[in-house]
Formats: sequence, C-alpha cells, structure tokens
Amino acid sequence: MDLDSFYRRNLINCLSGYKSLNLIATKNKEGVTNVAPFSQVFHIGAAPPLVGILFRPHTVKRDTLENILDTHCFTLNHVTPSLYQQAHWAAANWEGSEFVGAGLEEEYKDGFDAPFVKGSPVQLGCTLVETQTLQVNQTVLMIANIDHVYVEEAGLRADGSLDLNLLETVTVSGLDEYHLGKKLARLAYPKPGIQPVEI
Amino acid sequence: MDLDSFYRRNLINCLSGYKSLNLIATKNKEGVTNVAPFSQVFHIGAAPPLVGILFRPHTVKRDTLENILDTHCFTLNHVTPSLYQQAHWAAANWEGSEFVGAGLEEEYKDGFDAPFVKGSPVQLGCTLVETQTLQVNQTVLMIANIDHVYVEEAGLRADGSLDLNLLETVTVSGLDEYHLGKKLARLAYPKPGIQPVEI
Repeated sequence: MDLDSFYRRNLINCLSGYKSLNLIATKNKEGVTNVAPFSQVFHIGAAPPLVGILFRPHTVKRDTLENILDTHCFTLNHVTPSLYQQAHWAAANWEGSEFVGAGLEEEYKDGFDAPFVKGSPVQLGCTLVETQTLQVNQTVLMIANIDHVYVEEAGLRADGSLDLNLLETVTVSGLDEYHLGKKLARLAYPKPGIQPVEI
Repeated sequence: MDLDSFYRRNLINCLSGYKSLNLIATKNKEGVTNVAPFSQVFHIGAAPPLVGILFRPHTVKRDTLENILDTHCFTLNHVTPSLYQQAHWAAANWEGSEFVGAGLEEEYKDGFDAPFVKGSPVQLGCTLVETQTLQVNQTVLMIANIDHVYVEEAGLRADGSLDLNLLETVTVSGLDEYHLGKKLARLAYPKPGIQPVEI
C-alpha cells in the first residue's frame, strides 16, 4: 500500500496474468457509435451462452456502459496484430466516435443495431441481461447473452473450439502490453492416475 | 442452442479469447491441501488490491470454494511450461491432495496458512473479502484481497509491470489449450490526435 500509485497500478494489473482483449462497440440513443478496448470480459456459462464484463467506476470507458444500459446491445470483437494499435488508441478521450478518431471501420450485419468492428475474426452480438454494482469498490459487473457469433471459418475446428493462434487473436498484460499466443499443447481430459496426453 | 453440447461448450469457452491461468491452492479444515487450475481470475481494483474469481456451480473444483469459505485464505500461482501439464492434471477428480496426485510441490512462506506452488514465478497470498451468487446461473463470484506478492525478480520491471514473456507465464484458451505469450509491443498512454508510439 505504500508503493507509488503508478508503480502499484502497473504491478497489480499484471498479477492475474494474460487477459482477454476485446473491442466493445456500441451506439448511443442519438446513433453516435463508440468503440473501446476491454480486458475484463470473461466466460460465465455455455447454456445459455453468457459473458461477464467488469466496468471500472468513473473512467473514460463509462460511455460504453451508458450506451449498453440505454440500448441493451453491444458487440465484442477480437483484436489482431493489424487492429491492436487502433484498439489501444480507441481508449483515448475522443470527441465524437472513436471509430473515426482511431481509424476503425464499422460493419453492420443481420439487422443487429450495434456496429461490429470490420476485420475482426471473432465478432459477437450481445444483449444485456443484468448489471450489479460490487459494493467493495463500486465496480459494475454486467452479464450479457451472446446472440450472434461470427467466426472466420479457417479458425473454427471440427469440435467447436477456436484456433486462436491461427485467428491471430491478441492478448493483453497489464495496462498497455500486447501479445500473440504461441501454442504449447492441447491436453486430454484429466483423469486420476493417467498422465494427460497431447491431443 | 441446437448445437451438440460438447461442440457448444468448446465454442463458447473460446469466444472471450485468451484467459489467465492460475493454480489456486488451499487447505481444508483438516489440513489436507488442494490445488486446481482456474481461468476465471481477474483484476478488480488496485487500491485496495483486489482479484475476482468465478466459480462454476457443481463442478469438481468446488473443493477450492469450500476450503476458502472455511479458511478464508488461498494462493494464486502462475503456471509455466514446466508446470502446465501438472496444472491440467490437478483438475482430475483425485482422492486426497492434488499436490500428491498431479506431482506438484507445496511451499510455505511468511506464516501464510495456504500452500504456494513451488516453482511458480508469480505467487499471491490472498484472503477472502466476500462472495455473491449470480442469480442468472448460480455462478459464484468471489472477491479477495491480495496480501502477499512474490515475483521472480528478473520479471519485475522498474515501473512495476511484469514481463510475462520472460516469466514464461502460460495462458489458456477454451478448456484445454495452453499457450505462451509473444510480445507485439507496449504502447504509450493513448491521447486523441497522437498515434500511440511503442514504449
């Protein structure tokens, strides 16, 4: 607790390890689009298909939360090496749409109201289920349903899993460091007494 | 919703992207140790330093949750290429301690009651703050305070951030696929009108 706040924030943000990276795109009630990078998106359940997102209180990213509360829909978009610099830049405090400011392109599909990010290999159309505020530090936990899934077909395996190396999905550590994944192995379902083999 | 449940589970678990991987180690009231891999650990706040963990209802990993509710303490441990196969194996339904079953080694430091995983380059000693059950699917969200931080010094930078590539921290995708990270870049704080440079 005695550490310099900058040092402290860097350290604590790195402690959980690599984090998922998604661009969340929304539209406000006036139709102005918004897009921002998030590293706090996680799997909550497969049936129904739910994701959770944590929103920090009082940050520049608050627009995203307000737009979702107003419109009930948003998209999640994986980030690739050709998108991560714009994704990072989208977090700046732009006037007007971050799509214009940071040089990202909107894409609309199947009548879904929120914009997808063009060129993203995994795009999800989601609708709000509920939010709750964590009393401990006023962080907002949002739970949403995954309604639409668009995946670049080359990265979709026969068993339903995604080849994130092939899709070139980017992961983030700390506040500002971007990485690709480099596969070690997939391992068989773990059972006592039988060392898991590579699959 | 019509997909085969195995296919569906694989797909939905991959959609958020790369996930953090941590071994959570605990001790039950009788002193029997437990260790299991988790991909649902995330940053909640830096001041105070808080982590969140999602526990699925009715899984084999329920021991971890019960031990933490009983003893109020646990450790988080990053996984490396020399630990990931044991980490995966620790998820099997072992009789007795998974440390013994999967071949991991306990380490005790500074009087902290829960075991750390020996050889892990980032080890955190945590205490329970609160839990809440998400009504939407009975998932349990646990919030914990980070009390102790042990980091291999070579991986700690002057600004407090961690070099996860150097520490060889492993990340997971889907249910069973393990990866190393390969840095693209660190980017400067984003400001409107100024393209973020590499730092």
